[in-house]
Amino acid sequence: MPQSGDARRLRIAMAQLNTTVGDFEGNLQKMLDGVEQAKALAVDLLTFPELAVCGYPPEDLLFKPHFIAENRRYLQKLVKASAGITIVVGFAEGNGAIYNAAAVIHDGKLVDVYHKIFLPNYGVFDENRYFRPGDSCPVYTIAGVAVGVNICEDIWYEVGPASVQAYAGAELIVNVSASPYYFGKGDAREEMIAKRAKDNIAIFAYNNLVGGQDELVFDGGGMILDEKGRLLARGRQFGEDMILADLDVAAVAQVRLKDLEWQKGVAPWKEPPWKVTRVTLSDKPFSMRKPTISTRKVKPKNLYAEIYDALVLGTGDYVTKNGFEKVLIGLSGGIDSSLVAAIAVDALGKSNVVGVTMPSRYSSPGSVSDAELLAKNLGIKLLTVPIEKVFQAYQDTLAESFRGTKPNVTEENIQARIRGNILMALSNKFGWLVLTTGNKSEMATGYTTLYGDMAGGFAVIKDVPKTVVYELARYRNYRGDKELIPASVIEKPPSAELRPEQKDIDTLPDYELLDPVLKAYVEEDKSVEEIIALGIDEEVVRKAARLVDGSEYKRRQAPPGVKITTRAFGRDRRLPITNRYKGW
Amino acid sequence: MPQSGDARRLRIAMAQLNTTVGDFEGNLQKMLDGVEQAKALAVDLLTFPELAVCGYPPEDLLFKPHFIAENRRYLQKLVKASAGITIVVGFAEGNGAIYNAAAVIHDGKLVDVYHKIFLPNYGVFDENRYFRPGDSCPVYTIAGVAVGVNICEDIWYEVGPASVQAYAGAELIVNVSASPYYFGKGDAREEMIAKRAKDNIAIFAYNNLVGGQDELVFDGGGMILDEKGRLLARGRQFGEDMILADLDVAAVAQVRLKDLEWQKGVAPWKEPPWKVTRVTLSDKPFSMRKPTISTRKVKPKNLYAEIYDALVLGTGDYVTKNGFEKVLIGLSGGIDSSLVAAIAVDALGKSNVVGVTMPSRYSSPGSVSDAELLAKNLGIKLLTVPIEKVFQAYQDTLAESFRGTKPNVTEENIQARIRGNILMALSNKFGWLVLTTGNKSEMATGYTTLYGDMAGGFAVIKDVPKTVVYELARYRNYRGDKELIPASVIEKPPSAELRPEQKDIDTLPDYELLDPVLKAYVEEDKSVEEIIALGIDEEVVRKAARLVDGSEYKRRQAPPGVKITTRAFGRDRRLPITNRYKGW
Repeated sequence: MPQSGDARRLRIAMAQLNTTVGDFEGNLQKMLDGVEQAKALAVDLLTFPELAVCGYPPEDLLFKPHFIAENRRYLQKLVKASAGITIVVGFAEGNGAIYNAAAVIHDGKLVDVYHKIFLPNYGVFDENRYFRPGDSCPVYTIAGVAVGVNICEDIWYEVGPASVQAYAGAELIVNVSASPYYFGKGDAREEMIAKRAKDNIAIFAYNNLVGGQDELVFDGGGMILDEKGRLLARGRQFGEDMILADLDVAAVAQVRLKDLEWQKGVAPWKEPPWKVTRVTLSDKPFSMRKPTISTRKVKPKNLYAEIYDALVLGTGDYVTKNGFEKVLIGLSGGIDSSLVAAIAVDALGKSNVVGVTMPSRYSSPGSVSDAELLAKNLGIKLLTVPIEKVFQAYQDTLAESFRGTKPNVTEENIQARIRGNILMALSNKFGWLVLTTGNKSEMATGYTTLYGDMAGGFAVIKDVPKTVVYELARYRNYRGDKELIPASVIEKPPSAELRPEQKDIDTLPDYELLDPVLKAYVEEDKSVEEIIALGIDEEVVRKAARLVDGSEYKRRQAPPGVKITTRAFGRDRRLPITNRYKGW
Repeated sequence: MPQSGDARRLRIAMAQLNTTVGDFEGNLQKMLDGVEQAKALAVDLLTFPELAVCGYPPEDLLFKPHFIAENRRYLQKLVKASAGITIVVGFAEGNGAIYNAAAVIHDGKLVDVYHKIFLPNYGVFDENRYFRPGDSCPVYTIAGVAVGVNICEDIWYEVGPASVQAYAGAELIVNVSASPYYFGKGDAREEMIAKRAKDNIAIFAYNNLVGGQDELVFDGGGMILDEKGRLLARGRQFGEDMILADLDVAAVAQVRLKDLEWQKGVAPWKEPPWKVTRVTLSDKPFSMRKPTISTRKVKPKNLYAEIYDALVLGTGDYVTKNGFEKVLIGLSGGIDSSLVAAIAVDALGKSNVVGVTMPSRYSSPGSVSDAELLAKNLGIKLLTVPIEKVFQAYQDTLAESFRGTKPNVTEENIQARIRGNILMALSNKFGWLVLTTGNKSEMATGYTTLYGDMAGGFAVIKDVPKTVVYELARYRNYRGDKELIPASVIEKPPSAELRPEQKDIDTLPDYELLDPVLKAYVEEDKSVEEIIALGIDEEVVRKAARLVDGSEYKRRQAPPGVKITTRAFGRDRRLPITNRYKGW
């Protein structure tokens, strides 16, 4: 409680780590490094992200009792290293019932455990599948400061543990998170936290995970806001960081003293939704001799830089966390594969990216030369494996079975699948992970060949609409000192080049028309009628909806890729394949 | 309430329907047929399964407001057809908040709506993603009988709506379900319902869905048990049915009168967990002139017959509900593809099944002749497409890229992927759905080629362990008048025939050893140490666990297939691909 002459300050450090699911040893080492660094800086309170001990999200690994036990053993190792500091760290607690928990560790002891109350079970989240919700809101006295601890989703509700803790006296709210990225989410988070800070007159310290995990990329960007909602510190986006601040806790007490509403002490709920517990860890800081530390506010990136960096981090982490060094990309000379190659080079370095061009009778000379120019610009190795001979062998082999039929999409798919087979053969022979190059507009409409261009381990831009692919290519060219993706690649009309003179526009509406329809239909659950009512051409809308519904079976067999929108294909969108509902 | 001279009887009909997700019109037609049939039989109360109006499970279709609205419109059409009868039917109710609901319809009016209280969110279920739980337990007076209505999961809890309703006077409990099959589940259900009936001294009428939906097959087998837990009626398993019974409700009242514990009226819970509501629909039956109806108790199938029939129903429904007529199967002469072909013929008829044999330089003469004999036995068309020429073309094309390397699994995978490409080419050209033939032991260990033998629309036996594959083949031969699957197919050692003299056992442990390990590791979450402690060879266990963990990425791109075990690969088991946790 505030006292006259109150000059309380608390030094906080938030370690924004890139953990890996199931990598107990690796995650512990990162945390021990963080502890050492924090101690050297005389930090009072050090935080690590949600489920940092075991990695997030561990999914059904949580059902293995030995996984939970291992996670507990590693937590204990962190406890042992905590002499002279207070730590808040996420782990999975349980024995039968499992909780998404935060351990509060102080000076060599595990003092208390908080259980996450709000369990997200929408979008990509399945937390009700694993966890029971907590039922109490602890307030800890740490270095003489009242601190509320909670986890990720907890903070997103106006009446949640943070507000209960603040009304029970907490002056600092610590939230440890694993909040996956979609574009624009950083701003939404900052706005929400600023509101919570102002409403509750408390400092909010938000520690987010960073790194890629299958379909998800966590963008970090942890931040600390003061009791007026003003930004004190912001960490890097898409990179590990240590976010430091000296918090003027006395100021919180001052503002509260002057706030008449607050002084009435009437909480905005009728009954307290959860019980409040109080635990005193320390009445004063370990050390009073603290030099001033530097607090940084990393500037937010612009939209395309943000998306691009999300793709780089998600791709790099998928490759390396799965034990691969090199990747292989089929380069068609088109914009999708060119962008994917640029992302791969930025993620892994040019010596770890191999391109292969697989020309056919239908490849334009420009495509081959564009692929070559791109490879030269990126400085990557380029293989050439023409598919003509194999294509001819298929046609000869199938001639009898196909007698009396006319060439159609079948022959186009055979070519795409020959390329898929060649990519996988090179992958099997040399241990390179194949990156696929399909974009979201194609994945949505099924303008893609299952086992053909969809063949590979990771689908880098599967959540990037074609119109955004262009923006990202331009952004990457703009960012570098030289034109990386040849202008001819960006300018030519998109084509699969699987039959003479083929253009995407023969089959699909123009992407400028198509993408807004796909967004409304796929991401916003709008009906065909509602989209038409927005003034979009009826034929385009009906065709797009029909194509989306009809290609669910393809998407079910697609490799994972980085989510960058509010609704990606994959665990984020769960539609039956067997489905007779037709809105078109 | 019981009266002296109580002779109350209620005629119930449970329509065990095979609905289709999103097929509002088709589902309605089936229900209208059921209503007509029930009226002709002077039925008092007719029930339809869980979410019968929209099909189960509709997954993210529930997020589309227009889908919910359409489902409501079709419910209204059923209401209009309900003159002279009482109906309980599952539908999705909502506007913002969505409920898994049961409509209680009486004589042309929608009288009340029950909201499912227990929402399963484990295994294959994601109901917390969509639905809010209900909070009240209605008891309806129907034809003078007190009836409790609830939905599926509700009945699986000892203290649940059924017990609350029974203690509030309900003499008949109606449960409308969509309970997916795994082997042995029918017995588990009957045991559970018998216990509920005895504990609550009430008649239990359990109406289950039937039919295949993507990975799930609902097995029907609806049943009615009396207040002593004795079976009164049981419907077909794996087929549509109308389950009829005249219920002696007076007997329930008699038993309750004589039960001293029951007479105390003390419920086994301290506070009523949900509120009880009471609605009177009718004090007496519509018609008293009822001829006796015949009540059947369909005999349960034996284990292998049950699994086989589940596969037939799941496969047939996937094919036809997705608008296909014919299927294509690559026949290797091995037991997996032979079993799949037999299942397909039983599901779709021999004229709708096409086999293709794709011999290579490594195919034994026996394999080809076995495939031919099988096709002859089944009476299906058999195509022959040798892969040698294409394989040679790949080798020539890749010679330069592969220079200095030795043949390895790459060349085996190329062959498997040529076959995948040929199957898909035939599929694309003729509109046949490709059925894949991998079993659960292969899917578990990754002994399968992505885009090769895994290429296809539906993986019929992906949840069937290899040892069970043998049992099912023997069962199918035993069931028919003649040997359908050649003895040589069943007797020869399993081989992929992708290199000279190859046998599965060169790479994998013997299936008799392997399958129990896979069950313990995959289905029971046992650790490697726990499995070794069961007395199984350590090397076998460690190898199996390593193979399972290392092939997650393949399974993520696999087609769906019928779940027949307690934990299938797919939505039932959600493991990260990126995962450094190694228990081996």
